[in-house]
Amino acid sequence: MSLSNPIVGVFDSGFGGLTVLRALLPKISAAHYIYLGDTARLPYGAKSQATIARYAVESARFLEARGCDYLVIACNTATALALDDIRAAVSIPVLGVIEPGAESAYEATGKNSEVLVLATSATVQSGAYRTACTARGLRVTETACPLLVPLVEEGWTDHPVTREVLRIYLSEALQTCAPEAVLLGCTHYPLIAKAIAQTLADLGSEATVIDSAEATAATARYALTPLGGPPTAFIPATFECFATDSVEKFQRLGSHFLGRSIDQVTLLDLGG
Amino acid sequence: MSLSNPIVGVFDSGFGGLTVLRALLPKISAAHYIYLGDTARLPYGAKSQATIARYAVESARFLEARGCDYLVIACNTATALALDDIRAAVSIPVLGVIEPGAESAYEATGKNSEVLVLATSATVQSGAYRTACTARGLRVTETACPLLVPLVEEGWTDHPVTREVLRIYLSEALQTCAPEAVLLGCTHYPLIAKAIAQTLADLGSEATVIDSAEATAATARYALTPLGGPPTAFIPATFECFATDSVEKFQRLGSHFLGRSIDQVTLLDLGG
Repeated sequence: MSLSNPIVGVFDSGFGGLTVLRALLPKISAAHYIYLGDTARLPYGAKSQATIARYAVESARFLEARGCDYLVIACNTATALALDDIRAAVSIPVLGVIEPGAESAYEATGKNSEVLVLATSATVQSGAYRTACTARGLRVTETACPLLVPLVEEGWTDHPVTREVLRIYLSEALQTCAPEAVLLGCTHYPLIAKAIAQTLADLGSEATVIDSAEATAATARYALTPLGGPPTAFIPATFECFATDSVEKFQRLGSHFLGRSIDQVTLLDLGG
Repeated sequence: MSLSNPIVGVFDSGFGGLTVLRALLPKISAAHYIYLGDTARLPYGAKSQATIARYAVESARFLEARGCDYLVIACNTATALALDDIRAAVSIPVLGVIEPGAESAYEATGKNSEVLVLATSATVQSGAYRTACTARGLRVTETACPLLVPLVEEGWTDHPVTREVLRIYLSEALQTCAPEAVLLGCTHYPLIAKAIAQTLADLGSEATVIDSAEATAATARYALTPLGGPPTAFIPATFECFATDSVEKFQRLGSHFLGRSIDQVTLLDLGG
């Protein structure tokens, strides 16, 4: 791996992982990113472990074959259900989004704190956040929020219905816990982070909202930027995108998640 | 084809087509149904035509190879985007849900009537309902309702949020049309047919709600029950199910759509 000019693969089932790429781009100088969205088979959130692992391993192998030095699984469901399978299938380092998210929650609150994790049904059922948080001495409550991804994809990021759905999910969760941190355990949720924070405040909670996309990018920078090395000139990072379904849709929807336009997307057939 | 004991294949990307199977079961005596839900790759609603056609053709070929005499594409998206591909790929008769739905709207209202079609984004974009309705002299407005499937799958079939989302979708649609019929162009929507009818009434519309699942079952019966034949003893229809993802989830969620328990589901690998 060339630590000064790494090629970083970023994988998600769809567009959500672009919030992780958005967090990565300004953090690692002179990197080149290859983003793969397995859009023909999204969403992973409601599928079985065996199916998700098969899909994720195919994508990870593609990114390794394209020359990636480092792989970020920018998908909570794939991290929760397939990280071990992916690590066994490729020979480059693989970072998921769950450990960095749990670590960030721990850093923000400290041992014995209470954390509420919002995620898809599959991520909650996997128990992966529970394991990662419990290992750090955190107390954890998990709430499945299956309507939030469709609401974000409908573009209703600042909409009364989204606020009402959040009020329903969060008020139910707050009946059984009093969290100091709320961990966004899905890469779609950063787009409604403000609405989540506002709803928590409306419900009388002072919990800090933690974005696992930002936490993951910080961890990747730490892994890829050796401490004590010579200072290097800042060269802006570059990126290219692959999608397994409509390129036009990827460009259009993806730009909302990435926060900038996506000029080039290549259609990829993974045979699924 | 054995017209007295037909084997009827019913295909959908997931569970929604079970509303079509539910309508079929009491209609055709002594039939055996083979239902296939391509749950590993659902939903089709937001995918491209090429991807949907590839998935649907694989499923149709499987059902033909299992001995089906007749095939019902109980999926609006696959009917809209892949019916021609499916018919070209198999040698048994293939019925989609769109023509029967449009015909039923025509029968209920008559020529020059105005029809509002509610469907997924992909179905609306395909223009298939527009073509089928226009060919019958109906005037047609189509509204994409991407949140309704997730709301039904969340189980919020009788819920204030679902009613509010319906109010938003329908009041926007009624600003530009005054329909005599509202056609449910998605197999999930029969589960909220009452809420749709109530919302229409609340908004001052007297439109008839037409369920394309029922319309499709009636068309299939007509095709499979030769007129003028000898009366036969009534033998209840039987069915079996295949799914490409979690069998347990198919049994659990599917029973809501089918309106009865699903005892046996076989896991199927289509290689996707």
